[in-house]
Amino acid sequence: MLELLTSETPNGWKVSILLEELGVPYEVTPIALTDRVQKQDWYVALNPNGRIPTLIDHEAGDFAIFESGAILLYLAEKYGRFIPADAKDRSRVIQWVMWQMSGLGPMMGQATVFTRYFDEKLPSVIDRYVRESQRLFGVLDGQLATRDYLVGDYSIADIACFPWIRGHDWAGVDISAFSNILRWYDRIAERPAVQRGLLVPPPPTAEDMAEKTILQGKTIIA
Amino acid sequence: MLELLTSETPNGWKVSILLEELGVPYEVTPIALTDRVQKQDWYVALNPNGRIPTLIDHEAGDFAIFESGAILLYLAEKYGRFIPADAKDRSRVIQWVMWQMSGLGPMMGQATVFTRYFDEKLPSVIDRYVRESQRLFGVLDGQLATRDYLVGDYSIADIACFPWIRGHDWAGVDISAFSNILRWYDRIAERPAVQRGLLVPPPPTAEDMAEKTILQGKTIIA
Repeated sequence: MLELLTSETPNGWKVSILLEELGVPYEVTPIALTDRVQKQDWYVALNPNGRIPTLIDHEAGDFAIFESGAILLYLAEKYGRFIPADAKDRSRVIQWVMWQMSGLGPMMGQATVFTRYFDEKLPSVIDRYVRESQRLFGVLDGQLATRDYLVGDYSIADIACFPWIRGHDWAGVDISAFSNILRWYDRIAERPAVQRGLLVPPPPTAEDMAEKTILQGKTIIA
Repeated sequence: MLELLTSETPNGWKVSILLEELGVPYEVTPIALTDRVQKQDWYVALNPNGRIPTLIDHEAGDFAIFESGAILLYLAEKYGRFIPADAKDRSRVIQWVMWQMSGLGPMMGQATVFTRYFDEKLPSVIDRYVRESQRLFGVLDGQLATRDYLVGDYSIADIACFPWIRGHDWAGVDISAFSNILRWYDRIAERPAVQRGLLVPPPPTAEDMAEKTILQGKTIIA
């Protein structure tokens, strides 16, 4: 059995979408980022960077894998799917996964931090990251101008980028001018496995939220 | 023949160091970032992201590869060196390459931008990126506490991280507390191939600089 330790973020959804596409059984262990579970000793022993997601392959001696891009590659190679067999196309897929990991993810992440969470409102910094994200959207849009998917058939390159593009609004990035991305986005969003993957871990119910509020109240009173 | 289009940056040196370690012949095409050559049409046709480095494998139908992490993996697999054959260790090496690509590189890059280049001096932003870089140094230091190299023998994981750690001072990150990194750093820095790789592309000579000044003068006059 595979076990996915994850939370409701683009990097988590990359892996849950791939697992749903593969159709293999897996268990989900939700990690509560607001409680900083990802910094607890037992978790850092599995994932030295203290971030989600982590995959544990219990079929391979409880092998723990960190970094979402490395998990995508591990799973694609384990099952021989969503990565081309041809050496050049395989490298092209890895190039776009690396581009997502090093560019699209970090830059949209910074745009989100400075738009949503940072204590100060710093227009010049927000502008830097929104503009860089938009430049990256332009790169993706160009690649998709003559292709249905980033490299040949639907692959881990598309799966890596999709949940980040989905978060464009939250990061403050206007997607309307990128017509090739919009077509590609709709094509992927309609896949049943993608829709299932985006529900992992399950969103909290109203009851969960109420219980959490009560528990937090207890903690504060204690 | 291989061709490396590169400049004097950590991402460029990752590839030149690996090429020197492999001992294979390659040509260097220096890309002048200050002249924005990496944004010219001919370059973007090879590297849609408009960044350095790019590797062209002229032995494989002029196959062009972008993203330094993807180039490292391509070369390691092409020559079967600096990546383990064992599937788990291979994944571990890829995990650390991904960690460098998604974390260490982007965060030290942002620290450098806000410390050195940004129009405004924003202490809270500088602090954010220097602290995050230091957290990442702590992760690397922990991994090296019981190991000479990140995963087993010296690999592309070490080659990916080394030039970034080398740039700690430029990014404003204090390395003195990370004794495991310091030992690892010295072990790698003494390798002749690493020393050769760090001289690619060759640093400009005084004559180059004088000529460049004259040429820029001409351009301005023209």
